[in-house]
Amino acid sequence: MFSFIKKGVAGTKLGQPPGTLTSFSKSPSKEAKFEKITYNQENFERKVCSRTTDIMSVKDRSDITWLNFYDNSNIEILKDVAEKFELNHLSLEDILNPDHRPKIEYLDDKILLIIKMISINDQGKLEAEQVSFVAGTNYVLSFQEKPGDLFDPIRNRLQKSVGRIRNMKSDYLLFSLLDIIIDNYFVVLESFAQKLEDLELTLIKDSKEFQLVNLHEIKMQLFYLRKISWPLREITSSLQRTESKVLNSKTRMYFGDIFDHAIRTIDTTETLREVATGISELYTTNVSLKMNEIMQTLTIISTIFIPTTFIAGIYGMNFEFMPELKWQWGYFGALGLMLLIALAMLALFRKKGWL
Amino acid sequence: MFSFIKKGVAGTKLGQPPGTLTSFSKSPSKEAKFEKITYNQENFERKVCSRTTDIMSVKDRSDITWLNFYDNSNIEILKDVAEKFELNHLSLEDILNPDHRPKIEYLDDKILLIIKMISINDQGKLEAEQVSFVAGTNYVLSFQEKPGDLFDPIRNRLQKSVGRIRNMKSDYLLFSLLDIIIDNYFVVLESFAQKLEDLELTLIKDSKEFQLVNLHEIKMQLFYLRKISWPLREITSSLQRTESKVLNSKTRMYFGDIFDHAIRTIDTTETLREVATGISELYTTNVSLKMNEIMQTLTIISTIFIPTTFIAGIYGMNFEFMPELKWQWGYFGALGLMLLIALAMLALFRKKGWL
Amino acid sequence: MFSFIKKGVAGTKLGQPPGTLTSFSKSPSKEAKFEKITYNQENFERKVCSRTTDIMSVKDRSDITWLNFYDNSNIEILKDVAEKFELNHLSLEDILNPDHRPKIEYLDDKILLIIKMISINDQGKLEAEQVSFVAGTNYVLSFQEKPGDLFDPIRNRLQKSVGRIRNMKSDYLLFSLLDIIIDNYFVVLESFAQKLEDLELTLIKDSKEFQLVNLHEIKMQLFYLRKISWPLREITSSLQRTESKVLNSKTRMYFGDIFDHAIRTIDTTETLREVATGISELYTTNVSLKMNEIMQTLTIISTIFIPTTFIAGIYGMNFEFMPELKWQWGYFGALGLMLLIALAMLALFRKKGWL
Amino acid sequence: MFSFIKKGVAGTKLGQPPGTLTSFSKSPSKEAKFEKITYNQENFERKVCSRTTDIMSVKDRSDITWLNFYDNSNIEILKDVAEKFELNHLSLEDILNPDHRPKIEYLDDKILLIIKMISINDQGKLEAEQVSFVAGTNYVLSFQEKPGDLFDPIRNRLQKSVGRIRNMKSDYLLFSLLDIIIDNYFVVLESFAQKLEDLELTLIKDSKEFQLVNLHEIKMQLFYLRKISWPLREITSSLQRTESKVLNSKTRMYFGDIFDHAIRTIDTTETLREVATGISELYTTNVSLKMNEIMQTLTIISTIFIPTTFIAGIYGMNFEFMPELKWQWGYFGALGLMLLIALAMLALFRKKGWL
Amino acid sequence: MFSFIKKGVAGTKLGQPPGTLTSFSKSPSKEAKFEKITYNQENFERKVCSRTTDIMSVKDRSDITWLNFYDNSNIEILKDVAEKFELNHLSLEDILNPDHRPKIEYLDDKILLIIKMISINDQGKLEAEQVSFVAGTNYVLSFQEKPGDLFDPIRNRLQKSVGRIRNMKSDYLLFSLLDIIIDNYFVVLESFAQKLEDLELTLIKDSKEFQLVNLHEIKMQLFYLRKISWPLREITSSLQRTESKVLNSKTRMYFGDIFDHAIRTIDTTETLREVATGISELYTTNVSLKMNEIMQTLTIISTIFIPTTFIAGIYGMNFEFMPELKWQWGYFGALGLMLLIALAMLALFRKKGWL
Repeated sequence: MFSFIKKGVAGTKLGQPPGTLTSFSKSPSKEAKFEKITYNQENFERKVCSRTTDIMSVKDRSDITWLNFYDNSNIEILKDVAEKFELNHLSLEDILNPDHRPKIEYLDDKILLIIKMISINDQGKLEAEQVSFVAGTNYVLSFQEKPGDLFDPIRNRLQKSVGRIRNMKSDYLLFSLLDIIIDNYFVVLESFAQKLEDLELTLIKDSKEFQLVNLHEIKMQLFYLRKISWPLREITSSLQRTESKVLNSKTRMYFGDIFDHAIRTIDTTETLREVATGISELYTTNVSLKMNEIMQTLTIISTIFIPTTFIAGIYGMNFEFMPELKWQWGYFGALGLMLLIALAMLALFRKKGWL
Repeated sequence: MFSFIKKGVAGTKLGQPPGTLTSFSKSPSKEAKFEKITYNQENFERKVCSRTTDIMSVKDRSDITWLNFYDNSNIEILKDVAEKFELNHLSLEDILNPDHRPKIEYLDDKILLIIKMISINDQGKLEAEQVSFVAGTNYVLSFQEKPGDLFDPIRNRLQKSVGRIRNMKSDYLLFSLLDIIIDNYFVVLESFAQKLEDLELTLIKDSKEFQLVNLHEIKMQLFYLRKISWPLREITSSLQRTESKVLNSKTRMYFGDIFDHAIRTIDTTETLREVATGISELYTTNVSLKMNEIMQTLTIISTIFIPTTFIAGIYGMNFEFMPELKWQWGYFGALGLMLLIALAMLALFRKKGWL
Repeated sequence: MFSFIKKGVAGTKLGQPPGTLTSFSKSPSKEAKFEKITYNQENFERKVCSRTTDIMSVKDRSDITWLNFYDNSNIEILKDVAEKFELNHLSLEDILNPDHRPKIEYLDDKILLIIKMISINDQGKLEAEQVSFVAGTNYVLSFQEKPGDLFDPIRNRLQKSVGRIRNMKSDYLLFSLLDIIIDNYFVVLESFAQKLEDLELTLIKDSKEFQLVNLHEIKMQLFYLRKISWPLREITSSLQRTESKVLNSKTRMYFGDIFDHAIRTIDTTETLREVATGISELYTTNVSLKMNEIMQTLTIISTIFIPTTFIAGIYGMNFEFMPELKWQWGYFGALGLMLLIALAMLALFRKKGWL
Repeated sequence: MFSFIKKGVAGTKLGQPPGTLTSFSKSPSKEAKFEKITYNQENFERKVCSRTTDIMSVKDRSDITWLNFYDNSNIEILKDVAEKFELNHLSLEDILNPDHRPKIEYLDDKILLIIKMISINDQGKLEAEQVSFVAGTNYVLSFQEKPGDLFDPIRNRLQKSVGRIRNMKSDYLLFSLLDIIIDNYFVVLESFAQKLEDLELTLIKDSKEFQLVNLHEIKMQLFYLRKISWPLREITSSLQRTESKVLNSKTRMYFGDIFDHAIRTIDTTETLREVATGISELYTTNVSLKMNEIMQTLTIISTIFIPTTFIAGIYGMNFEFMPELKWQWGYFGALGLMLLIALAMLALFRKKGWL
Repeated sequence: MFSFIKKGVAGTKLGQPPGTLTSFSKSPSKEAKFEKITYNQENFERKVCSRTTDIMSVKDRSDITWLNFYDNSNIEILKDVAEKFELNHLSLEDILNPDHRPKIEYLDDKILLIIKMISINDQGKLEAEQVSFVAGTNYVLSFQEKPGDLFDPIRNRLQKSVGRIRNMKSDYLLFSLLDIIIDNYFVVLESFAQKLEDLELTLIKDSKEFQLVNLHEIKMQLFYLRKISWPLREITSSLQRTESKVLNSKTRMYFGDIFDHAIRTIDTTETLREVATGISELYTTNVSLKMNEIMQTLTIISTIFIPTTFIAGIYGMNFEFMPELKWQWGYFGALGLMLLIALAMLALFRKKGWL
């Protein structure tokens, strides 16, 4: 949890002029690679590049260009990109800040979109990576924190021309990329649902195995998930409604579709949070109940044996003159008295409903 | 509970182009059956069909057609329906997704409406089934997940021409179908009210019989109910207000009626949730109170016998020189001392209000 | 509490056409009585009727007519009323449904208003009765669930022409009737305030007498009260603002007055709810505190006597070779040791702040 | 607390026509006194009056008149005021109702303003008094429940012509009066802040001295304070924005100033409420912690002495054949065994982290 | 915490005319120093002044003037500033009040902005200082409570002409100053995140070291932080949107940037609050769990030894006729019986899942 927060509060460069670009990577590399895909209805070309000369101007080109930067450490290349695509430095700074709040911004002839891509890592923890998009009329730039294979289905659909993707404009490409990111939220949510179900079953079946810290961690991660999925509502809704050169009326319907998905993501997150709270309450009450049961047992045993032990104590006293000790049935009388007290106690407990 | 959530997060086809149609049924059947009802003021005809050729175009027909699909597993038939009724693939995808959020969409000359139909199954658990409607000026298409008899009263009223249903347009049919679904929410809510009342009575009369897990389950189900009934407010309100070719001003009043019902559903759900919380709090405090009572009993018995047993212990010691042991009234003196201590303790407890 | 909820969920006639009128009375009577009052500046006439022929048309009449139906069991008479006053069947159905949500509806030349009248019954429980009004330019129809004397002051003011009521239009009559109903909310709230004050005093003075179930019941009733008083805000506010043939500008000010009262009702309900929560919290913490005190006493007594009893136990052993037993001051030494241990314990407790 | 609520629900005159004026004072006096101040740039006159003839018409007068009624028991005088200043009876009724919700009303050529004046009485409890203002273009009427000296600084500033008050219109007088009332809220809030700080210190230093009931009382009073300070936001904001004959553009800025103060009052009230909740939580957890500590001590002592006492019990048995009793080192062996058990127990506790 | 609140409620001068200027410093100094910086594209001049004659009029000057007052104790100088810069007395009063709520006000040709500057002091506590700005077309006045070095980077950038700051108008200077203040919030939030992480780790690793009071303090400080950061949203958003002579369209983008930062501050504060609540809940449940474990140990030990000690007590009685005492295997039989009882108890606990 704290890694998320710190990521959020870090990256602040006190007193530096706005638009100062800093790579947040610990080991900036000189030779950043990026991927260049150009396509139209007939052709498709894909190339992995690493030099700034590979970034050509896209003005007046009729095909669609998709540049995917999966390594933000080389500031020089990014600056070159910013210059060629007329991206101002404030926007570039937002892209480079690894914990910017998800947002959408409509610039003159392009759209800047920052979003979180989430996944469950090998340790079963939530991981979030920032992905930024800059979309113009005939290009889409995407910036990932590190290389990943989430966009592979899109690459395949582009290459094999599956569906209408090769016949549509750059906004459809933007939609496809967003769609795959948002759909991935459900995979993560499903994993959380499974974890919560396991916890609930553990709690009901064998509460000793239940680990409170696990529930606490899931709650904190769901809280973070809510924080990053709430802005999706506004982003997808605005894509559906806003007039922009980049957005065609034909794709509006598709953005409506991911708006639905975004709402569903938020809904499910809220549901899981409520379920987590429910489990938490169930657990707390269970703890109280168990304590109650233990106290009850202790009380019953104590209250039966304490008075009887007292009787035994009396007849263990060494006074010279204790008439009962001389009686022939004294011993059995004492035993009988003890039994009587024990039975009386049991009757009292049964009456009080503790037995 | 978790079945609902998982249903929600499942059904996501990562990376597939939008509008890809997949049947979520585990065993898709080749021969899907559906029901075809056509009627006007004079005539009524009902037929169970299974072939795509039975789906005729309804253009320029003057009577009303109602097609009820109660099996979404045959994609081919649904694709044929979509084509004949000019339904786009995104809408069809929404209809086929078994956990779409309830919503209404006004398309050019038709209305798409997705809603949940709820019931209590044999195990007393809440069950939700998705029902989708597509309404045009002279037809209504309805899509159920599985066959059911909820719409029987409508079939009867259509056949026997009860009320004004045969004299009205397709929007009145849509209203009637919605009305019966929303009215059914009250049946489910009544069942929950009964369960909560039983739980409350159990708690007040004999708290040992109270099962916390039952309350937890009801809470979770009410939470789900709230989630699916909230969108009803907006859906029914929009039906009352929106201008559409499909909706006639005469039916507006009727949609106002189901708007009232929807509000009442939401209100009652909130009430039941609050009642559940109230019972939960009552239970928790009851547990504390009982613990208190047990502790009190334990304390009283312990504090009376622990000191007296101590006195007995003293006179059970085997020291050679213990003057009291030789006294004639030593034994009775010791007993008297014990009694005195016990009485002093009882007096203290009475003063503290613990007795 | 549950009676309210069930009343709410009952009264649903699955699958019946809208506007189907059913009397919810268990014993529908053939001869429903109702009250007819006609008045203008000079005259006042009051009559108890039971036949439909007594319901005359009020068209073009210059005086004001008030029909008060205090028995909704005779559907025929109500149907006749609906016909003569051009009231549609959906409205009549709302009036007959005994748990309709409070609402106001502006029809062409009349106003339909549904509201709850509350009172405290003999068992000290909250009771709610539905009252509906239909107001036209020269008439007011009122529908009560059962006869009652709440409107008596209005009857008197009409008969004796107290204040301006005889000089005003039907909207002033509507205002007067609403005013008396809403003012009655304060009587009920005062009774709840009294009950809560009693509970708080009981809790502070003698917490053993405190009955948690009583607080629970009041909370549930306040919750219901909130539910039915919230819509009052919108209803009274709309009466003040809406343009309608029935409402004259001169009465607007009076409706502003009951708007103030409605806000005050809601405010006071919220206050009482908050107070109930405060008492609840105070009680819970009190329970914890008392437990704490009991535990403390137990601990102190146990920890003083357990070690000393142990010493007594040692010298009660029957070993042949126990040198201390032979010592002359052995016994007093042992007693001294016990005293020392007891004093050490007491010192420890005082240091820990438990004494 | 309850006195506030009851004051709120009382004062309802069931069934009386609106505008019926009743004095809520228990002992209505015949001769109500009031204060009359007239001033302009040059002159200042102050007079204490008690007859209705002293209430002159202010029409066409060029100086400003301030009538301060500090005793609402004489209905006759108030009726006379209402008549001379063209105040309708509904407004007068609001002024006379001692628990009207704070509100502002813009009448034709005047403003009606009802507000609460708060103070801490000798018993350290919150006290609220209602003050109403009627402001016209050249007069201000103020109605207090009882005489008080809060307005003295205004009187002084008027008499000595401090600041611009003598050069301004009646709206500036209204502002000055409101300003002094709202500023007084801070004095009360400061007193609550002090009380809460004391409680927090008591809790941290010596939790035995902490009185839960005190915190409960403060919470209830802060709740009431929130209730009466919330409307201040809207009242002061409307004074700043609304067009009215009474309000001059020059004073707008000053009302903006008390709007800031009102917001600050609300903010501070919320802060104090949150702090009270924080203390409450701290206390509850403290109680749990202390209980824990007590239980721990009890457990440690019990578990050390219970087994050792058992050993002593065994060798206190009187069986004829008990070989150990004859052993020479039997006694010391037994003591050693006891010591061993005690040490083992202590080791166990240290391992569990209870020591 | 309370220091913040009291600061808030103090500084109220009951009954004084508005605009009365009071220095809240305890030791008003006669010779207040302030800093004067003038710059344009070519020149930069910085001077520390202390006399009112150093405050020149800025009318018709083409360069930008920044006056930084870091000592509000000298009222005379401030009055002179107010006069020369046509600042009304109400605004000056707001600037001098050390706990004014953060706000922005658009005056004719200038902007008044009040904001909190926060830091963590040497004792690790949150400290807030009020900073006010008055910005005109060619000047910025800043008022700090005490001298500080936060603005040093701006001074450097101005002097060395880093970035575009020397080429821009006064609004860019205002932006730079605000930017550095808001960026500093992240430093404080990072410190709170670190503290919470430490507390969480302490809690999970060694809950005995956990100090509840520390968490309570952090919660209270976060609450205060929320209170002062919420207005930032509106302030920065209005700077981005409002038309004013002072704000140029070129700087709009930069204010959009600090709006993003403000949102992020608020978000992170909420996140940290939620995390604090999570830790609090975890702690409370941990306390219950630990208590449970202790009770369990106590119960097990008690219930094993109480019955066996009772057996020993029986055979320690001194009755003359006790047949078992004479049996040769009586002693070992008794020991066996005790062992049996102990084993039976252990079996019971294992069955109940307490072992």
